[in-house]
Amino acid sequence: MKFVAEVNVMPKKELLDPQGKAVKLGLKHLHIEGVKDVRIGKHIVLTFEAETPEQAREIVDTACQKLLANVIMEDYSFEIKELQETLKK
Amino acid sequence: MKFVAEVNVMPKKELLDPQGKAVKLGLKHLHIEGVKDVRIGKHIVLTFEAETPEQAREIVDTACQKLLANVIMEDYSFEIKELQETLKK
Repeated sequence: MKFVAEVNVMPKKELLDPQGKAVKLGLKHLHIEGVKDVRIGKHIVLTFEAETPEQAREIVDTACQKLLANVIMEDYSFEIKELQETLKK
Repeated sequence: MKFVAEVNVMPKKELLDPQGKAVKLGLKHLHIEGVKDVRIGKHIVLTFEAETPEQAREIVDTACQKLLANVIMEDYSFEIKELQETLKK
């Protein structure tokens, strides 16, 4: 079974996000007003194969823990979709 | 009205994604098997104020076009949610 996982890795809320701060200032300079907060993280799209949806979740969780996110400074969340139907067409 | 926009900025499909390639290799080295493709982009969360949902969409679209995405090399997509209810609690 083929799956696609959409992973978001964001800096933890307690931490400063200098990149976000810079973008907030940049928006102000462009006269885009009303922006209160900007936080910037990573969006990772994984296409992969697994036997079951449970195994798919496990693979993505392991990948996040071990490589994609620095769990001390970042939080991650993900959604997994099966690709089977699209492939059959 | 207060809104939260979740923006994803991804390298265009036609382009190479060296960061994604590196992560794919990294996953293999960690014995996380079965990963066919990895693409890495940015996930940006904007908290902002706007008069109407239409204006909110316009603000985010302008921000993407002018600052958040390099539209030559990147595609962007976003979802906007109103924050009103959460604030009233």
